[in-house]
Amino acid sequence: MTGNRVVVYKGPGQVSVESIDYPKLEIPDDVVNGLGLKRKAPHAAILKLVTTNICGSDQHMVRGRTTAPVGQTLGHEITGEVVEVGDDVLFVKEGDICSVPFNIACGRCRMCNEGKTGICLNVNPARAGAAYGYVDMGGWLGGQAEYVMVPFADFNLLKFPDRDQALEKILDLTMLSDIFPTGYHGAYTAGVTTGSTVYVAGAGPVGLAAAYSAQLLGASVVIVGDMNGERLRQAESFGCETVDLSTGAALPDLIEQILGEPEVDAAVDAVGFEARGHGEGAAEAPATVLNDMMTVARAGAALGIPGLYVTGDPGGIDAAAKIGQIGVRLGLGWAKSHSFTTGQCPVKRYNRHLMNMILADKAHIGKAVHATTISLDDAPQGYQDFDKGAARKYVIDPHGMTA
Amino acid sequence: MTGNRVVVYKGPGQVSVESIDYPKLEIPDDVVNGLGLKRKAPHAAILKLVTTNICGSDQHMVRGRTTAPVGQTLGHEITGEVVEVGDDVLFVKEGDICSVPFNIACGRCRMCNEGKTGICLNVNPARAGAAYGYVDMGGWLGGQAEYVMVPFADFNLLKFPDRDQALEKILDLTMLSDIFPTGYHGAYTAGVTTGSTVYVAGAGPVGLAAAYSAQLLGASVVIVGDMNGERLRQAESFGCETVDLSTGAALPDLIEQILGEPEVDAAVDAVGFEARGHGEGAAEAPATVLNDMMTVARAGAALGIPGLYVTGDPGGIDAAAKIGQIGVRLGLGWAKSHSFTTGQCPVKRYNRHLMNMILADKAHIGKAVHATTISLDDAPQGYQDFDKGAARKYVIDPHGMTA
Amino acid sequence: MTGNRVVVYKGPGQVSVESIDYPKLEIPDDVVNGLGLKRKAPHAAILKLVTTNICGSDQHMVRGRTTAPVGQTLGHEITGEVVEVGDDVLFVKEGDICSVPFNIACGRCRMCNEGKTGICLNVNPARAGAAYGYVDMGGWLGGQAEYVMVPFADFNLLKFPDRDQALEKILDLTMLSDIFPTGYHGAYTAGVTTGSTVYVAGAGPVGLAAAYSAQLLGASVVIVGDMNGERLRQAESFGCETVDLSTGAALPDLIEQILGEPEVDAAVDAVGFEARGHGEGAAEAPATVLNDMMTVARAGAALGIPGLYVTGDPGGIDAAAKIGQIGVRLGLGWAKSHSFTTGQCPVKRYNRHLMNMILADKAHIGKAVHATTISLDDAPQGYQDFDKGAARKYVIDPHGMTA
Amino acid sequence: MTGNRVVVYKGPGQVSVESIDYPKLEIPDDVVNGLGLKRKAPHAAILKLVTTNICGSDQHMVRGRTTAPVGQTLGHEITGEVVEVGDDVLFVKEGDICSVPFNIACGRCRMCNEGKTGICLNVNPARAGAAYGYVDMGGWLGGQAEYVMVPFADFNLLKFPDRDQALEKILDLTMLSDIFPTGYHGAYTAGVTTGSTVYVAGAGPVGLAAAYSAQLLGASVVIVGDMNGERLRQAESFGCETVDLSTGAALPDLIEQILGEPEVDAAVDAVGFEARGHGEGAAEAPATVLNDMMTVARAGAALGIPGLYVTGDPGGIDAAAKIGQIGVRLGLGWAKSHSFTTGQCPVKRYNRHLMNMILADKAHIGKAVHATTISLDDAPQGYQDFDKGAARKYVIDPHGMTA
Repeated sequence: MTGNRVVVYKGPGQVSVESIDYPKLEIPDDVVNGLGLKRKAPHAAILKLVTTNICGSDQHMVRGRTTAPVGQTLGHEITGEVVEVGDDVLFVKEGDICSVPFNIACGRCRMCNEGKTGICLNVNPARAGAAYGYVDMGGWLGGQAEYVMVPFADFNLLKFPDRDQALEKILDLTMLSDIFPTGYHGAYTAGVTTGSTVYVAGAGPVGLAAAYSAQLLGASVVIVGDMNGERLRQAESFGCETVDLSTGAALPDLIEQILGEPEVDAAVDAVGFEARGHGEGAAEAPATVLNDMMTVARAGAALGIPGLYVTGDPGGIDAAAKIGQIGVRLGLGWAKSHSFTTGQCPVKRYNRHLMNMILADKAHIGKAVHATTISLDDAPQGYQDFDKGAARKYVIDPHGMTA
Repeated sequence: MTGNRVVVYKGPGQVSVESIDYPKLEIPDDVVNGLGLKRKAPHAAILKLVTTNICGSDQHMVRGRTTAPVGQTLGHEITGEVVEVGDDVLFVKEGDICSVPFNIACGRCRMCNEGKTGICLNVNPARAGAAYGYVDMGGWLGGQAEYVMVPFADFNLLKFPDRDQALEKILDLTMLSDIFPTGYHGAYTAGVTTGSTVYVAGAGPVGLAAAYSAQLLGASVVIVGDMNGERLRQAESFGCETVDLSTGAALPDLIEQILGEPEVDAAVDAVGFEARGHGEGAAEAPATVLNDMMTVARAGAALGIPGLYVTGDPGGIDAAAKIGQIGVRLGLGWAKSHSFTTGQCPVKRYNRHLMNMILADKAHIGKAVHATTISLDDAPQGYQDFDKGAARKYVIDPHGMTA
Repeated sequence: MTGNRVVVYKGPGQVSVESIDYPKLEIPDDVVNGLGLKRKAPHAAILKLVTTNICGSDQHMVRGRTTAPVGQTLGHEITGEVVEVGDDVLFVKEGDICSVPFNIACGRCRMCNEGKTGICLNVNPARAGAAYGYVDMGGWLGGQAEYVMVPFADFNLLKFPDRDQALEKILDLTMLSDIFPTGYHGAYTAGVTTGSTVYVAGAGPVGLAAAYSAQLLGASVVIVGDMNGERLRQAESFGCETVDLSTGAALPDLIEQILGEPEVDAAVDAVGFEARGHGEGAAEAPATVLNDMMTVARAGAALGIPGLYVTGDPGGIDAAAKIGQIGVRLGLGWAKSHSFTTGQCPVKRYNRHLMNMILADKAHIGKAVHATTISLDDAPQGYQDFDKGAARKYVIDPHGMTA
Repeated sequence: MTGNRVVVYKGPGQVSVESIDYPKLEIPDDVVNGLGLKRKAPHAAILKLVTTNICGSDQHMVRGRTTAPVGQTLGHEITGEVVEVGDDVLFVKEGDICSVPFNIACGRCRMCNEGKTGICLNVNPARAGAAYGYVDMGGWLGGQAEYVMVPFADFNLLKFPDRDQALEKILDLTMLSDIFPTGYHGAYTAGVTTGSTVYVAGAGPVGLAAAYSAQLLGASVVIVGDMNGERLRQAESFGCETVDLSTGAALPDLIEQILGEPEVDAAVDAVGFEARGHGEGAAEAPATVLNDMMTVARAGAALGIPGLYVTGDPGGIDAAAKIGQIGVRLGLGWAKSHSFTTGQCPVKRYNRHLMNMILADKAHIGKAVHATTISLDDAPQGYQDFDKGAARKYVIDPHGMTA
């Protein structure tokens, strides 16, 4: 245990796998200096990665749409085996296989007390909330690696009850660290319930997870929209209806063809600020998806917005977009009494429930998002393929444990 | 009972009191033609107005910021005595004094079933939701009048248990038709609860009602912001803290001076699309209040938005604003996991509870908003004074019943 | 249209089909006299029955466990075609096929406003809440008949969008009047959500509907307990686990054999006051099911109690039971911080959502409860077979419309 | 720091102050042996008591109504100054003055994650949930002492922001450890909101705290019932209405005299299993309060039950009561669709909010419950006076810090 290998951002469009030190049971400098926490972390654990997925939000960094510096380590969708625990870790032990929520949380602050682990106050001096391997998220090392340190391990880790069962269902369970709860959060905060008709904007992995979650929540019809035909086919593979936005047809008309009415009960934005206008060759238009959703969501609807909107976007289309100011047709929503839920999913609110569904053989999320295993060395290729729109969710297996 | 007098919009900046026909137990043409309802309305009642208030949203029409035609009758804050009921009115009777929610609702559709009376599906062919005396709200006659017809009377009317008590507390009870519930809705949907610190943007009557409601909901500190010193004094009169935005000082700094921190637990937008930038002489800036609220609301906060945002604004500051598209810094809120509730207050959800507080002598909303009685003939003067920023809520008493 | 035939209670163990007058658009005497409503009912409609089911709660009357007089008309699970409407019925019309919630509600009172249609204040002088064809429930005529009068028709009727589709799926849709929403209410108020493990006490039609609903709500495992093997087989037919309580084995042990732990996340009492002790030959023990549920529900659980408990029981096992006082081990639940929801299901809260599931082919409740069509003349036989424990839900088709 | 003095149960009716060892940063044997936790507790802190109150639930033990052994240390209402912290305590430090929730919770289990700290899974081998100084609650030492050990200190401690302010308001803040949140929980789970009419059974400290909390939650009228005139006067001192149950008058009649109707919107049971029948000389009747509440709570009401019900009662009135089985008229509640919330208050859910109210000078709970300071040596006298029905809440100040 003398080293560690991790995926690193090397500049726009480039990542590589590099060697760094083996992790210690210590808090990062940013947090020690910025918030005054003790460096020594008896509450932490070291995990050997079983799986670690590439996320769409990693792509924002790799595309150069953030201020991530060259050298930023990557990876926040982590499932691993506990190999070391600190003195104050009481409820997980070596050998346990656990899911790690992407949001790092202390379990001791006011926000954690309220279940709002996405905005923990004690893990990031720059803002509320932190994550592994992400710019402005506290300086925690990335988990697309061989090993990773997880602080507040008793609070953050979700232990799988049985090791063999866990490895058998690993392509489902690996989605518990981020996209399954994130998609579920989108559908749940959109108010999806028994009988709902639902529109999900975006058929990337989060969109597919939102669509799948809408089905678990009892939706009667789930419609997924995208401009990528392969991803739409993926949505159809588990029973969704789809609308192809590349044709330039009006979204309400496309929905009416399916439902007999141009509106849905609930809508989820699984796209975020890198949205594009509709039709072949349409340009980036950051508020398009939001404005679309207000158009097609029924009066009284809730809109779930797991898609990322940023406070600053160096690659924004204009001066306003560069400071995260976008042209929202708020009056559309106001006239319909819409409500909106934004922000990162607090993974712990949902991951145990979703784990139970996977273990009871009632949820097959890996198949829904087309989970595809690759080696750590293949991670750069995975980033490229994903960026090109492959209808796959790439799952890195650094130690070959899942074969 | 051979006529009726009503306040009418006569063009930008002008209203007058005109004579029209005495109301009938009939549905307006727009609704008959657009939605196919029977014209005859055995479910309706005629009310003799006891009080009828001038509302800030009336001013949007009178300032020419809507498409209201000359001749539009005005008035949707109605309290009256029942003088006639249709054959299917079972639970109110002649002589009852009742509050009338400004939102007209059928009580029979899916939205009304869910308590969403602000977006009833059966009362306005143009959109979900209707109101008395308002452009695009279904063609129902205005209630700044001597008499008014109320459809679905059993559902819409809130009967006061005792006539004498009602007349004695009428300056409080008259606020139940709109601004008291609307302010309460703003505070409630902002999640105000025991111990909350609250920022209310705007010290007009709705802002004052929101601030007062925040106190009823248990806020520990309520801060009201405005650029009108007289209105801020009014907020202070019932125990609010205030921040004067005309000075150009930064809002977070002003809040920190009061609370010792620059953020609050909950925020209410009681301004809407006619917001102005801060500081003396600042221009209209429709998203300013929203962007301010995301700045000062704590991570995890809910934002209540009773302030009106429109789908189209002929007087908007630019092409985008004219179609209701405004520059929202959505990423600010997203980074803090904010949620947002928009739309008209469903008055029935709250009016009975608030009536109970008034009748038990626990809420004195009339005093908080500086209720000021005027005659029907003085309504045009009331509109002018209110538009100039008087820290008063004008209550028209068409029959001299409240003296 | 000169007559009507209806099922009538003739004394313990006996029902017959008798002729009565064709219904009028009028309120029953009890309500006119007791509550002062106008007798004439322009808000009402006459329905020709399409289907009308026999309910377990009808059996309480027929077994002589209530004060129902000889001559009581029966039937509250009604689906019908509108054949006549009053002057104030605006939104349903002749020819519409509709589901009728078993709870009669005015749509205009405080309780109806809050969605609590099971305890409407204006339809029963004896208490809050009313139903068709039931003792002490307001004197409304029973719907196991050819025709039935439905008051407040716009509020009470749920219209099916397409007549042909409705008739095609009628064995599912007929369950919307009572047991599907009632079972769903039990599961919903027990807090069943994605991933829950659930125990349902009782495998009669309501228990089966609760188990099926728990699956729709996302349960990972649903366990149904009963002493009737045929009914347990029925529960297994749609994927439930079962525990046979006739063996005398301890319930926690039986649950542990299935789940690996002796407790569940949520529990539903679909039995009520006629509960029996466990094991062959066990006597009636009215609090047994409740006490069992507190034993097997996890700390923090909610218990849904759609099973009927009565205020008086002439056939009770002892003096206490005769006044509805039963030996509850409340401390068991208190130590676990349990919460309890009792009362009749407010059908309107759920029936539209569940209809959408049926129409979208996502819910097959008729098959789950083994819906079995019989003629009106066969109703007495149906009562007998059901009382003997047949694992069937009897659906009367008085006009042969469903063949 | 070589010793500690603590209140100890010495047999029915007797307590004394005894010397024990100074606390260590270690978990009690019961928890180490029963649940396998590490004995060493780097997550713990030692507190020097500032105040520690005598609780009504202590009296159950002292009256001999539990299985508490002679030698049981007492005290769970703790406010103290941190004097030592373990290595993994990051967010409180020596010198901080903190409130300690009576329920001990790990902050790391499924229940704590959901905010259900009253039923933590990791602190008591006997059941879910633990407390300081209480029989069957995990073996944690009592806090009516000079010093006490608090495990999971970052999670359990609520730090007061300013030391001087804390000492100044200590008679209010000391109620945050139990009765203020417990009373609030009762009112909150009874659904008390703006405008509610409320009945609180019992005018002991928890009842008074529930009544006071109901006012904070916006009740229009709060009625408190008891048979102790002095305690009723105390309730009147802060604006409650009262009903004297010692007269034998029927409770609905007494309520009707106040409200004009015999029912309330919400009801709180602040008595529990040691309830007595009404009228002078009435005997113990453990379900009386519950049955009363179902009688006077409106249809659709929620009932909050913070009053303790036990699983076993050696001093119970009959064989059934000895196993915690009591004669509940459940049908009364079922007919009204009542819901019930039982169990210990999860203090952390409310204590921060209530602290904010105290610090903002908006809540004066110490005065409402008649807080009365005594020395540690006077604790035995305090127990006696309280048991006799003194309308006081005894606050022990072991170090004379509050003078």
